[in-house]
Amino acid sequence: MRGDQYLLLPGPTPIPERIMRAMNKSMVNHRGPELKEIIKDVTVGVKKTFKTENNVLIYPASGSGALEAAVVNFISPGDKVLSISIGVFGDRFAKIATQFGANVEKLDFKWGEVADPKVVKERIDQDVRKEIKVVLVTHNETSTGACNDIKAIKEAMGDHPAIIMVDAVSSLGATDLRMDEWNLDVVVSGSQKAYMIPPGLSFLACNSKALEVHKKNNNPKYYWDVTAGLKYLEKGQTPYTPAISLLYGLQEALKMIQEEGLENIFNRHRNYRDMVRAAVKEIGLQLLTDDKYASNALTSVVVPEEIGANKVRKFLLEEFNIALAGGQQTLDDKIFRIGHLGYVRQLDLLATLGAIEIALVKFGYDLQLGKGLNKAQQFILNNR
Amino acid sequence: MRGDQYLLLPGPTPIPERIMRAMNKSMVNHRGPELKEIIKDVTVGVKKTFKTENNVLIYPASGSGALEAAVVNFISPGDKVLSISIGVFGDRFAKIATQFGANVEKLDFKWGEVADPKVVKERIDQDVRKEIKVVLVTHNETSTGACNDIKAIKEAMGDHPAIIMVDAVSSLGATDLRMDEWNLDVVVSGSQKAYMIPPGLSFLACNSKALEVHKKNNNPKYYWDVTAGLKYLEKGQTPYTPAISLLYGLQEALKMIQEEGLENIFNRHRNYRDMVRAAVKEIGLQLLTDDKYASNALTSVVVPEEIGANKVRKFLLEEFNIALAGGQQTLDDKIFRIGHLGYVRQLDLLATLGAIEIALVKFGYDLQLGKGLNKAQQFILNNR
Repeated sequence: MRGDQYLLLPGPTPIPERIMRAMNKSMVNHRGPELKEIIKDVTVGVKKTFKTENNVLIYPASGSGALEAAVVNFISPGDKVLSISIGVFGDRFAKIATQFGANVEKLDFKWGEVADPKVVKERIDQDVRKEIKVVLVTHNETSTGACNDIKAIKEAMGDHPAIIMVDAVSSLGATDLRMDEWNLDVVVSGSQKAYMIPPGLSFLACNSKALEVHKKNNNPKYYWDVTAGLKYLEKGQTPYTPAISLLYGLQEALKMIQEEGLENIFNRHRNYRDMVRAAVKEIGLQLLTDDKYASNALTSVVVPEEIGANKVRKFLLEEFNIALAGGQQTLDDKIFRIGHLGYVRQLDLLATLGAIEIALVKFGYDLQLGKGLNKAQQFILNNR
Repeated sequence: MRGDQYLLLPGPTPIPERIMRAMNKSMVNHRGPELKEIIKDVTVGVKKTFKTENNVLIYPASGSGALEAAVVNFISPGDKVLSISIGVFGDRFAKIATQFGANVEKLDFKWGEVADPKVVKERIDQDVRKEIKVVLVTHNETSTGACNDIKAIKEAMGDHPAIIMVDAVSSLGATDLRMDEWNLDVVVSGSQKAYMIPPGLSFLACNSKALEVHKKNNNPKYYWDVTAGLKYLEKGQTPYTPAISLLYGLQEALKMIQEEGLENIFNRHRNYRDMVRAAVKEIGLQLLTDDKYASNALTSVVVPEEIGANKVRKFLLEEFNIALAGGQQTLDDKIFRIGHLGYVRQLDLLATLGAIEIALVKFGYDLQLGKGLNKAQQFILNNR
């Protein structure tokens, strides 16, 4: 008997029982009055998490769908796009843009590190003929656990006319992002991360500057069309059938978010992150990212080559039913990623750190069992 | 955000997601063919957990209901009953018998200890006129975490004609009990303990000797009537509407029990118990029961008076949403009880031990944080 799973991924994240119950309701007419109320209600709630007065569209799609929506609505074939990438998801955003005809220039930074706003500024400043139409950037890079300074990157663009489009799929709700205050043009996010509901919803917000760009956009689109979405939203509807049970869940999730308070939620995520990092350091393992830009959502832990990260993950899954994410692409078997995102409990992280130690000792790593665990315990004691 | 609850009570116990889903089904006709199949199926399964070829009746009732069923079916007013009690639930069995007119003699043992078969034998041997009709005994005493040696107690009765009725509410499925091999006459159990389903079902098994006693029984009864129950069971029905969704859950639970194997389940419970006890000793707290007869289902931990057990429980509940049981009656505020019964995960116990340490240090108890936790970690490492 392994028991139900400890789901410690950087998404999907655990679903609160309260949300499970909220989703477990009958379907209603998606053009009827009940759903109209729900769509209005969740739109208001999601806007608060974006810290924006702009409208937010809710797509029945996963996070990558919202990336595609951003691309097909605001990038036209042939547009010059500057893609700032610090990992797999930065690359994905660039790839989608390429797929839809953009002329993408990559500005890559080392995986595990973040984009240097000075380097961005240099590139932008070089663009004296204002050829760059769109800048793509990932807020929280899920593949590494590094979190870009979006405010600084936007500032680095100065008064360059390009719009900035931010992939905030794994950051929103866990990390502060202020769409309006930072003057961000397009921001997208997804449901299966800090929003604590299953995958299947994604969010796209855009400001008036982006809408101007959209009007002239000539990429073919139907499902993702922002014009259609906004038109229907005025009536409290969606252009096509929405994912009704996920909207039930989202409504409940937004209630929970409001009850706890966004700033408290950010603090909780930081708190869990700091606990995990302190324990991992005490264990003697290397962290992929520096403290300065460490993600609130997940922590990538480097495992010594002679053990291998996947062996540790396999052991944790088989012995304790703990699901941790592995490294992607070049990071495969080098790291595992501990998600501390969404509805994760601090004691589940404590237990997982204990289990990681057991795995390491089992595989011959020189460790005094309990060293990191006690650090975490001490952290909890001192931070309540 | 505290997260969903760590339910570490000696019942109700956590419900596996698989069982939740199984229960979450539409109702059917309780006299129809679908339910007939289910009733037959679960009856076979429950019999296996009782290790009996006797029939088992399934009541829509909690465990105390099955105690009452045992009393009203097999004790007549005026019957001399010997009640062996080692705690609250032993007393309850005696109280119900008294309520229905039995002439109850209490044979009490100190709370936290078990019944001494020698003392039982002495009392039985004194009864040369065979006045005692029924012996009542609790297998696992939930209020203390002491587990009686039922086989030895039954043997102590020798060839005395009294029937023995065993309250196995919190033992069956977690602790070996062999109804037929040990020649037990009546055994009752409940659903919310090792059976991993919600409260609301209880089980009663009786052998042919008990049925003879039942035939002459003159206590008034309707709901609990064994004759009616057995008559309907032949048709795959119950005398009145059964708790259908709980039967769905029970069917799934019995599948899980069969998949894991009863002996493996007993070992798992022993393993968790030994881990908890080793850690608590390392922390320096006293255990209410001796290792020799420590319960597989729960562990009672004595908390120093200057701290108080309830303060620790309150802290764990408020800070971490961990539900532990308190002490009952004279044990109130003296102990807390950690349930390691049913679908509890070993790492939840590890986390809880960590949280208990944090609470103790917070309340000024002299402890090197992590001492017991590391003992538990070591235990896990060495017992896999």
